[in-house]
Amino acid sequence: MSLIVQKFGGSSVANAERVMNVARIVTDTYKNGNDVVVVVSAQGDTTDDLIDKANEINPRASKREMDMLLSAGEQISISLLAMAIEKLGYPVCSLLGWQAGFATNSSYGSARIKKVTADRIKEEIEKKRIVVVAGFQGLNKYGDITTLGRGGSDTSAVAIAASLHADRCQIYTDVEGVYTADPRKIKGAKKLSEITYDEMLELATLGAQVLNNRSVEMAKKYNVTIEVLSSLAKASGTIVKEVTNVEKMLVRGVTKDSDVARISIIGVPNVPGIAYKIFGKLAAKNINIDIILQSVGRGNTKDIAFTTSKANSETAIEVLKSLELLAGLEIICDTSVSKISVVGAGMESHPGVAAKMFEALFENDINIQMISTSEIKISVLIDINDADKAVAAVHEAFIPELTD
Amino acid sequence: MSLIVQKFGGSSVANAERVMNVARIVTDTYKNGNDVVVVVSAQGDTTDDLIDKANEINPRASKREMDMLLSAGEQISISLLAMAIEKLGYPVCSLLGWQAGFATNSSYGSARIKKVTADRIKEEIEKKRIVVVAGFQGLNKYGDITTLGRGGSDTSAVAIAASLHADRCQIYTDVEGVYTADPRKIKGAKKLSEITYDEMLELATLGAQVLNNRSVEMAKKYNVTIEVLSSLAKASGTIVKEVTNVEKMLVRGVTKDSDVARISIIGVPNVPGIAYKIFGKLAAKNINIDIILQSVGRGNTKDIAFTTSKANSETAIEVLKSLELLAGLEIICDTSVSKISVVGAGMESHPGVAAKMFEALFENDINIQMISTSEIKISVLIDINDADKAVAAVHEAFIPELTD
Repeated sequence: MSLIVQKFGGSSVANAERVMNVARIVTDTYKNGNDVVVVVSAQGDTTDDLIDKANEINPRASKREMDMLLSAGEQISISLLAMAIEKLGYPVCSLLGWQAGFATNSSYGSARIKKVTADRIKEEIEKKRIVVVAGFQGLNKYGDITTLGRGGSDTSAVAIAASLHADRCQIYTDVEGVYTADPRKIKGAKKLSEITYDEMLELATLGAQVLNNRSVEMAKKYNVTIEVLSSLAKASGTIVKEVTNVEKMLVRGVTKDSDVARISIIGVPNVPGIAYKIFGKLAAKNINIDIILQSVGRGNTKDIAFTTSKANSETAIEVLKSLELLAGLEIICDTSVSKISVVGAGMESHPGVAAKMFEALFENDINIQMISTSEIKISVLIDINDADKAVAAVHEAFIPELTD
Repeated sequence: MSLIVQKFGGSSVANAERVMNVARIVTDTYKNGNDVVVVVSAQGDTTDDLIDKANEINPRASKREMDMLLSAGEQISISLLAMAIEKLGYPVCSLLGWQAGFATNSSYGSARIKKVTADRIKEEIEKKRIVVVAGFQGLNKYGDITTLGRGGSDTSAVAIAASLHADRCQIYTDVEGVYTADPRKIKGAKKLSEITYDEMLELATLGAQVLNNRSVEMAKKYNVTIEVLSSLAKASGTIVKEVTNVEKMLVRGVTKDSDVARISIIGVPNVPGIAYKIFGKLAAKNINIDIILQSVGRGNTKDIAFTTSKANSETAIEVLKSLELLAGLEIICDTSVSKISVVGAGMESHPGVAAKMFEALFENDINIQMISTSEIKISVLIDINDADKAVAAVHEAFIPELTD
């Protein structure tokens, strides 16, 4: 007998029919002799509908009240799922985030889980009940409801799995697993049977929006085995764990991220500490920077370029323009760029991956604007119009290795 | 400076515009130097919408899960109202039932408040915040959410007012106060400036659905002064308190209740204990009985008739037919009846009220089927087709006394 945590996203419980479908998956798992804890998000568009209601009244509402409002969404979905499980004749109990013991910090809207005191969940499991827990929410030390931010239900599920030492944490989504590239766009894209936490983290950061990043970090920290699978298709998914058999595969996936803006500062004075002053100021404004490229200094000046999200680009430019040491310098923002990456733990010990990627791009006439590498990832910045062609070319180049 | 509890029902917060209207009433009260605690119900049709969602999945869902579901309704309305108050620039904090300290028993769907531990509310008041509390809900000893049943928000408001020793509990509704008769139907109906708890209880029980009965009982027990007034019209309402100046008025109101079924059992054996056996069995099935009439025994048999709600009538008849001692007896159910009542604490010391009422009915050719009296109330059962005419006639008869 195993203890299995299952998480279902908003689209999986969007209407009565889908709620019943989830209830069947859950009760099938229970019927096979497992203890089951289910984590659910708010139904389909509930969160957006609630945000609309708030905006109609006060677009600048406090984050505390927004969290109070939004957390009602999961309250609705857990009770409906519990009712569906009752209908199938199984014992069940729904629990809100605070009832399930989720203690968070006080960052309303993007709270971090500090601890899960799962006593109540354990009690219910001992009574042989299926436990349905509201994802995305917790309670801070003031006794106020917090939300974990978008995608937070994945993190809720992994946190419960860690706290209960669950045998597996299944994340049900609308895709069948983690693919080597977006299967809707790349014909040869293949489903991976296994992937490491680090690879998954790189893929998630790079735009393969299958799993929330924080949830993977937490799974890695507490060694929770995750399985990503579809709530609609009956098929095994992708297992995410510490070590996989990476020998066979060099590259795990090719991703595209088009929410990128490249900002260049031309003719920056070549004096010590200038990078610290620029990026320290940007960090103070909570602007996440991705790739940074600094040209070799020519004489007294050098060029500095970096990428950030499109949403952050305007604020970033304001920050730069307010810096006295950059006064009068030319600052260019280019939003017509895209970041293509290959990820794979195997590339650490296999030279030539970068060369192979660059060759594929060259053969397709695609110009590389910036390059960034980590131990298990290579990213290039290219023109956004070349993006899809680039993913296809790079994926094609690595296909021989992709046979899993 | 006073501490005022204000309660707004679902129609008062049905949409963004009305929520803003409520926010203005609340902040006006606060601006005048009062501490304000606001209790709100779920928005307009939210509760019904949630019930529809539940029915689509499982019409026989457990009451625990129904309460989990329905309590999301007030969670939405308290946060929206708090946002509206924020927009007007006032400090505010919304609290769920359990955060506000509502401890209830475990009767899901119709829980009773056992205690309000209002520490958190007091803390927020000390911080000079307007406190917005979710009505209708509490927490049982197992840490599970309960609801108080329909109209429970009135009770929530009075319970908070009692716990905080508030100076006044204002119940905002869609009528301007308590009237001598339904103002939409009876032309001469007048708004009462004051009414006693007992009179209000009789009026509420008799179908003047202004205040939830339990809330009035609680107000009486803890001596909370209630004011019933409109959230739309700026006018003083009706004060409900222990003692009013009743000298001027003999009758406080005339009411009609058409949700009545009369059940008659013909030829019941005239033996001791038979009433106990019949009504004990009905009570065991949770069937509330209103008027009971037992004919004077003739020989070995007597007739027993009683009234109950239309909804309970079928179950009542089933219960009666299952009783061995009534085997073979004729049981008649008549649902085409209506109960007309006059209520007034003054009638205790004024004889002739009943006679005056009967005279008015006689003059209008209305036949009285049953009569029931209490110290401050006289009710008669008549044909449902005569009901409106009867209310008008009785109201007219007492109008000279109604000049307030």
